[in-house]
Amino acid sequence: MNFIDELKFDEKGLIPVVTQDFENNQVLMLAYANREAVEMTVEKGTVHYFSRSRNELWHKGETSGHFQHVKEMFYDCDADALLIKVIQDGAACHTGKRSCFYRNIKGEEVL
Amino acid sequence: MNFIDELKFDEKGLIPVVTQDFENNQVLMLAYANREAVEMTVEKGTVHYFSRSRNELWHKGETSGHFQHVKEMFYDCDADALLIKVIQDGAACHTGKRSCFYRNIKGEEVL
Repeated sequence: MNFIDELKFDEKGLIPVVTQDFENNQVLMLAYANREAVEMTVEKGTVHYFSRSRNELWHKGETSGHFQHVKEMFYDCDADALLIKVIQDGAACHTGKRSCFYRNIKGEEVL
Repeated sequence: MNFIDELKFDEKGLIPVVTQDFENNQVLMLAYANREAVEMTVEKGTVHYFSRSRNELWHKGETSGHFQHVKEMFYDCDADALLIKVIQDGAACHTGKRSCFYRNIKGEEVL
């Protein structure tokens, strides 16, 4: 059975994806995928998401060149979240930061 | 300004939380918090979530003893996701596994 058939997509057809640096385990970003995005990620070997703001398939890196090359993929105990370990070209964040989680709760930029 | 005022909770009042092991950077779980859960996490120093299945505040570890002690908290560029680094007592997963992401997409239990 294909793992995609086990995944629980939400009422919008989405599943959250945590993307992690394969080399140093830094959490790079959290975004969402629909079924097509998961299929494309597996097929192409680079991470695809579903952009909720643009309402379309989003091949990460297509405009920035900052592709995410899949090394390992996991799903959680409830099958309602994905974890993808990647080799990150350039920066994961659109701000140019390596990780989107660059601010701590004091508002300090720590990365 | 309190960082909580900057967070973007979704239409259900929730924000996804990625919980990561402070010591080895393993991603332990993904769950959701509402505003109260974030406030309690900051106030108590142990991670609180909102249980979508039970529809109530969920103090992780309250029944299992597997508390998550907050070391660092971050929010992402869009302020719609949290990353919390913790010292994990026992296992993060209700299955007894250290991490909820113990299966790879081949269905193999890898952790």
